[in-house]
Amino acid sequence: MMARISKSDFPVSQVRRYLEPGPIVLVSSRWQDKTNIMTLGWHTVLEFSPSLVGLMISAGNHSHQMIRESRECVINLPTTKLTDTVVGIGNISGAAIDKFERFGLTAEEASEVDAPLIGECHASFECRLHEDALVERYNFFIFEVVKAHVAPSPKHPETLHYTGDGVFMVSGQVISRRSLFRPEML
Amino acid sequence: MMARISKSDFPVSQVRRYLEPGPIVLVSSRWQDKTNIMTLGWHTVLEFSPSLVGLMISAGNHSHQMIRESRECVINLPTTKLTDTVVGIGNISGAAIDKFERFGLTAEEASEVDAPLIGECHASFECRLHEDALVERYNFFIFEVVKAHVAPSPKHPETLHYTGDGVFMVSGQVISRRSLFRPEML
Repeated sequence: MMARISKSDFPVSQVRRYLEPGPIVLVSSRWQDKTNIMTLGWHTVLEFSPSLVGLMISAGNHSHQMIRESRECVINLPTTKLTDTVVGIGNISGAAIDKFERFGLTAEEASEVDAPLIGECHASFECRLHEDALVERYNFFIFEVVKAHVAPSPKHPETLHYTGDGVFMVSGQVISRRSLFRPEML
Repeated sequence: MMARISKSDFPVSQVRRYLEPGPIVLVSSRWQDKTNIMTLGWHTVLEFSPSLVGLMISAGNHSHQMIRESRECVINLPTTKLTDTVVGIGNISGAAIDKFERFGLTAEEASEVDAPLIGECHASFECRLHEDALVERYNFFIFEVVKAHVAPSPKHPETLHYTGDGVFMVSGQVISRRSLFRPEML
């Protein structure tokens, strides 16, 4: 049994702290009373304020249409404790099953969107569709993060970074070079 | 003195292997006989074939205009051995200085683009601008990787993943779950 993780409000302008390192994320959605979760590694931060992130959500995923219709999602950050869950979610379509139930995850109410938070993740970012100009051609959605929830500790959780071919790199060890940065670059 | 790293041809359709984990990259460019390098963490893979990647290159960077004019760049992958170089490059503008000279880096000829490769990096991906629809509004460039060069070893080099605030996470340790993937998902 995985534990639910208690989270606190976090400034939306600082979500780069968790997303810029490039972790695998779990994207949750809700459309017409069905929820779904997908594993996603193709994303980037785009702006601090408004807090914009870009996600490539392939049209082959069941989540694609749900997110396109609802114009919302939640980006959840799993740690290495959820490795097998991440792999399981990525290997099965949500068309026929309830992934929250199948994988023993807790759907928690979000505050700004209808899509559910995943209780067992380290952080959850509530998102509203901001720009769909490249959705048709590239499946590229630009979302605004409208609310952020983050567990206060650990400060640098071990995250998964996918390389393809079933292999993840793990981040967690930290190097600080803060003293070498010009203040305005921090 | 940093060592130049010998690289081999690598399939462009598989650059996700190095970029999907979300490392900090060094983007090199050339325009009107000047070269430049910038540190960049806001990027995502977008497609296997053609091999598309999206980069958010802020308009405040000297490289922005050079890349916009030349419609080319090279995405280079530094390892932790280049940590201080990565920080140094990110902290100074290329408007007045030659960053290859300043940081003791080797500008090598690319084969498909005019922008130079960085000899000391683990991998270099030659890119041509593929889509500029979101450049004006979001500084978001979609490039096609037209040629890839990768060092044969180590297979999983230690890479830097920026969190903001002068702090990098390090990836290098690996978890394989290959046996749990459906073959078509690999």
